[in-house]
Amino acid sequence: MIKAGIIGSTGYAGVELVRLLTQHPEAEIKWYGSRSYIDKKYYEVFANLFQIVDDKCLDDNMEELAEAVDVIFTATPQGLCASLVSEEILKKVKLIDLSADFRIQDAAVYEQWYGIKHPCPQYIPEAVYGLCEINRERVKGARIVANPGCYPTCTTLSIYPLLKEGLIEGNTIIVDAKSGTSGAGRGAKVNNLYCEVNENIKAYGVATHRHTPEIEEQLGYAAGEEIRINFTPHLVPMNRGILITAYASLKKPVTYEEVKAVYDRYYADEVFVRVLDRDVCPETRWVEGSNYVDVNFKIDERTNRIIMMGSMDNLVKGAAGQAVQNMNLLFGLDETTGLLQVPMFP
Amino acid sequence: MIKAGIIGSTGYAGVELVRLLTQHPEAEIKWYGSRSYIDKKYYEVFANLFQIVDDKCLDDNMEELAEAVDVIFTATPQGLCASLVSEEILKKVKLIDLSADFRIQDAAVYEQWYGIKHPCPQYIPEAVYGLCEINRERVKGARIVANPGCYPTCTTLSIYPLLKEGLIEGNTIIVDAKSGTSGAGRGAKVNNLYCEVNENIKAYGVATHRHTPEIEEQLGYAAGEEIRINFTPHLVPMNRGILITAYASLKKPVTYEEVKAVYDRYYADEVFVRVLDRDVCPETRWVEGSNYVDVNFKIDERTNRIIMMGSMDNLVKGAAGQAVQNMNLLFGLDETTGLLQVPMFP
Amino acid sequence: MIKAGIIGSTGYAGVELVRLLTQHPEAEIKWYGSRSYIDKKYYEVFANLFQIVDDKCLDDNMEELAEAVDVIFTATPQGLCASLVSEEILKKVKLIDLSADFRIQDAAVYEQWYGIKHPCPQYIPEAVYGLCEINRERVKGARIVANPGCYPTCTTLSIYPLLKEGLIEGNTIIVDAKSGTSGAGRGAKVNNLYCEVNENIKAYGVATHRHTPEIEEQLGYAAGEEIRINFTPHLVPMNRGILITAYASLKKPVTYEEVKAVYDRYYADEVFVRVLDRDVCPETRWVEGSNYVDVNFKIDERTNRIIMMGSMDNLVKGAAGQAVQNMNLLFGLDETTGLLQVPMFP
Amino acid sequence: MIKAGIIGSTGYAGVELVRLLTQHPEAEIKWYGSRSYIDKKYYEVFANLFQIVDDKCLDDNMEELAEAVDVIFTATPQGLCASLVSEEILKKVKLIDLSADFRIQDAAVYEQWYGIKHPCPQYIPEAVYGLCEINRERVKGARIVANPGCYPTCTTLSIYPLLKEGLIEGNTIIVDAKSGTSGAGRGAKVNNLYCEVNENIKAYGVATHRHTPEIEEQLGYAAGEEIRINFTPHLVPMNRGILITAYASLKKPVTYEEVKAVYDRYYADEVFVRVLDRDVCPETRWVEGSNYVDVNFKIDERTNRIIMMGSMDNLVKGAAGQAVQNMNLLFGLDETTGLLQVPMFP
Repeated sequence: MIKAGIIGSTGYAGVELVRLLTQHPEAEIKWYGSRSYIDKKYYEVFANLFQIVDDKCLDDNMEELAEAVDVIFTATPQGLCASLVSEEILKKVKLIDLSADFRIQDAAVYEQWYGIKHPCPQYIPEAVYGLCEINRERVKGARIVANPGCYPTCTTLSIYPLLKEGLIEGNTIIVDAKSGTSGAGRGAKVNNLYCEVNENIKAYGVATHRHTPEIEEQLGYAAGEEIRINFTPHLVPMNRGILITAYASLKKPVTYEEVKAVYDRYYADEVFVRVLDRDVCPETRWVEGSNYVDVNFKIDERTNRIIMMGSMDNLVKGAAGQAVQNMNLLFGLDETTGLLQVPMFP
Repeated sequence: MIKAGIIGSTGYAGVELVRLLTQHPEAEIKWYGSRSYIDKKYYEVFANLFQIVDDKCLDDNMEELAEAVDVIFTATPQGLCASLVSEEILKKVKLIDLSADFRIQDAAVYEQWYGIKHPCPQYIPEAVYGLCEINRERVKGARIVANPGCYPTCTTLSIYPLLKEGLIEGNTIIVDAKSGTSGAGRGAKVNNLYCEVNENIKAYGVATHRHTPEIEEQLGYAAGEEIRINFTPHLVPMNRGILITAYASLKKPVTYEEVKAVYDRYYADEVFVRVLDRDVCPETRWVEGSNYVDVNFKIDERTNRIIMMGSMDNLVKGAAGQAVQNMNLLFGLDETTGLLQVPMFP
Repeated sequence: MIKAGIIGSTGYAGVELVRLLTQHPEAEIKWYGSRSYIDKKYYEVFANLFQIVDDKCLDDNMEELAEAVDVIFTATPQGLCASLVSEEILKKVKLIDLSADFRIQDAAVYEQWYGIKHPCPQYIPEAVYGLCEINRERVKGARIVANPGCYPTCTTLSIYPLLKEGLIEGNTIIVDAKSGTSGAGRGAKVNNLYCEVNENIKAYGVATHRHTPEIEEQLGYAAGEEIRINFTPHLVPMNRGILITAYASLKKPVTYEEVKAVYDRYYADEVFVRVLDRDVCPETRWVEGSNYVDVNFKIDERTNRIIMMGSMDNLVKGAAGQAVQNMNLLFGLDETTGLLQVPMFP
Repeated sequence: MIKAGIIGSTGYAGVELVRLLTQHPEAEIKWYGSRSYIDKKYYEVFANLFQIVDDKCLDDNMEELAEAVDVIFTATPQGLCASLVSEEILKKVKLIDLSADFRIQDAAVYEQWYGIKHPCPQYIPEAVYGLCEINRERVKGARIVANPGCYPTCTTLSIYPLLKEGLIEGNTIIVDAKSGTSGAGRGAKVNNLYCEVNENIKAYGVATHRHTPEIEEQLGYAAGEEIRINFTPHLVPMNRGILITAYASLKKPVTYEEVKAVYDRYYADEVFVRVLDRDVCPETRWVEGSNYVDVNFKIDERTNRIIMMGSMDNLVKGAAGQAVQNMNLLFGLDETTGLLQVPMFP
């Protein structure tokens, strides 16, 4: 059994990690970290786990934690994970960071978009960006896995094949994204109150959202050149789910069959990426609670553009599920272990 | 492997059965019945099952079905299941009926409340009311299991111990129930459109709801005498979940500890009934997607009444989950097999 | 023009007062009090008022305020309004208090349920409970109007006629209430976050909710004797609306027509109370954004009980609308002035 | 008093017309047309109008209707209004058509996108596209007003000034739109059931939505040349509201101040178009229930694109409100008469 510890276990990504790991046949949680609820029973915070988890929440103590577990998940605000890393820690445990600290290879870009100084830039180069479908082999040997952001996961998987195959113009990419409210976190903010979010849709972080450079970096690897995109996230009155609608100009006319063949070539063997049938649009309800990403596309001959779409559960494939997928890779398990939940509808 | 067939597989209870059975280690679905979608791929109706279920929907054919499977689940409107039963069928397969056809022992009561003639009253006596926690042993040997209604399940489990122990006056019981909208079914009705249900709460079926006699019958068994209750269901703008708030006069003053001890005595060994800690109210979010029923109570000395509360996922413990629990009993499996999903929050 | 000031203008009741008063033909707001947003433009807090209200939020200053306006609305937490009252203030302005400070005639009861010491019990006797339909004449001459609580308004108007006419047993009354989330206020609390409220229903304050003694006092006036009830509020995932479902034993058998005649006798001339047609249940969607209370009832001969139902917009008739109705009475205007908005659906 | 008739009064646009017209000081409804509810009291369909409207629903009878009223609103499916028009009718009444029949000047384009033959193409040339802010003067003298579609209204008002001023490249425009579910109509379809829409977001009509040519025609007038855009609508789990997020390449570098000055020049005197303050994004909650359109923009120097945003209530400015605005123009009233409702929040 893999012994796991979670720092930040009482946020939405944290409780989703708990849901997945308590059902994982090869893992057990040994440490429920939570600064806000120290000494409180975990089930008193999340009553869904009543009579399932009996542990108490613990304060952060990296040394003790590193002794107690094989892998640490950090589901914490930016900057925290990076501040805890050291050679000593990395000798003892694997680190899967759900924050952005190790996602961007250029520390200067990180510092510019996140507005904080990176605490340990020396560890960035060895961290592996844990988008399993693309970096599978590199993840297996990593000490630090940078678990991808929710929007970057959905966006990259939706666009990657076409960019890699040179079918679309990189600098024409526009990503219009929509997310459920769990993506905004569990902090007590007026903006996230029920009455403020319900019956509303809004864009936020327009032209300034921090996932922009992360997406650009990953798409840049696919294109083999620097890429600048527009990325606009929106807040949707629902709990879970991300939908991205991406637009790009085609480099040359292509048929439906040609593009479909490209997607199939990349994803036919990928359990968690489902290329939908012709004219079926991804919808967040069909992936809720699961690790699937549904992708599809539509060619618009009138404008010579292609519309690429992807849907995903932001807390599963966009956070905790992908983290477990990375854990499976790190410990030599079948990548799908504990992750084959059928999406729940309605 | 238990071979299962579902008649009515494209309603909300049907698709929940599919979700649970496709993840069940000892069962496989051999028949996806659906009159509305004959010959359509099941995943075209419910895209959450894309690349998971590849079967087509089939028309009803009871003879063929009885040959093909070990157990038939009927998730259909009242009257249909009863019209299909025959000695020949029952010799070949077990029947788990999610409709009301076999729930009420007195056919006259059934006919009065449901307004239809019962097609096969002769089979009612042998049908076992599949509230596993109460009728476990009888279920094991049944040919027909009458899977309980959603409201009756939640209500009976919340009230049963106190009535059985003679702590409350049976005829003072008032049950105020609240249900998510999946309980209203998947029929295309104006009343169930998004804009009609959203931002609204209403009572319906006041003093006339068909679950009333079913609840009264079950509570009557506990009390050892006929009981008349008030039952008022309400429609809540959410997908899943039932909450019942029940009121009754205490026969004599009791302490919190005395009542708690009664609940614990009945449910300490029941995996799926969780008696919450003092002053913690059941909430539907904590059981979503799971087979749990959370119950608790509050004594009001001012009025000498006790308030009993229960929450449950109407599609799981209130329909498909309990049906699988009954299947497990029928086939000698551990009762919790395939049913230990951790509730999903948020 | 009546000059109005609002203390606590940036809560949900506050912004609803602003919505109603800016459209009121005989009133104008001269003071937007808000400790949390001092010096901020009001429309920066509530952008619906962009280009409609250009004022800034002001700190509390009772002396200045009393000079500037004719009437003060206090939409603030318990205890604040009472702490501001003085003979000097009352000589200058009318006071309409949306908090509970002056609703309960017995200060000891107030202090017991609210857990705070009443700052000025000497003013309680002269305060008039502003349930206009019942205390209309007394409101007209008041200096202090205690604007009723949301649950008490809906409950009292639904039950009052039957109790007053002696048709029901007072001590059998059970009120099961359901409220939208705006009733929980605009404070930044985890419990009121979107993801915590959405897809959930729960009871709260079971047997301890502070509106209980307020309801009991008002019902007691109707009955002419002390009454003890059960009152259980529930939180519903919607913005606005209160529905109450109340149960009581009938003193003697009555017909539908007899009960209907009683309701009609009390409410035929009341613009804001609509007695629905037979078998039509009140629903919150039909009163949203308006000052109407919809009431109806159902007799259950089986249990000799009557089910009384009422629906209302908690922010209008349950708070700001009723406050404006009281203002109209205080200043000799037609009671419906500025309050005839047609409910908005969907 | 203007006498108004509504054909199709029991859809969502219809009931919104009723809400607005019953509160309009210069209009009264004389005809509630509804084929589905003939002879039923209007308030039995929409109980918000109980004790406000006492009329019955009537079958369509164009001749009688034309005698009875001064203006007819058609809130019906495509093709119906056009089939009713004749010289005789137009001599007697003004026609405000909320369907698409007269929005597109080229009947061939209409027939291609809508898939039906236009019943009376000869009347298209004289119909005026009722986007009041742009075609105000022409509307005043019209016999037929083509009330604009919801998406085209919000899109055109958000983009028009920049295109007209030559700041953006017309053929780079991409419009990503999001709508509440009332836009899908009140037909009883499985796809619009509560449980299908709730907790979901999806794109629909990708590259094929019928509002595309309408938007292109209007933007073409602004640009002075043919324009091809991408338009992708999405369905959002909320009742009301449209948000559009539009992207276009800038023809040359511009500053915030320059662009703001353009918007202000076009809209400073427009009551119903509110150009928001810098960095404030339009949100649907701030316009709910009102006739306002909130617009704003953000320049992204990194990609040389501008993001234009607009929010609106689809049933008010996107349908019934704009129709009333057109009626006001047709009958020489102040354009804002009956339309100054303050947006309702929450």
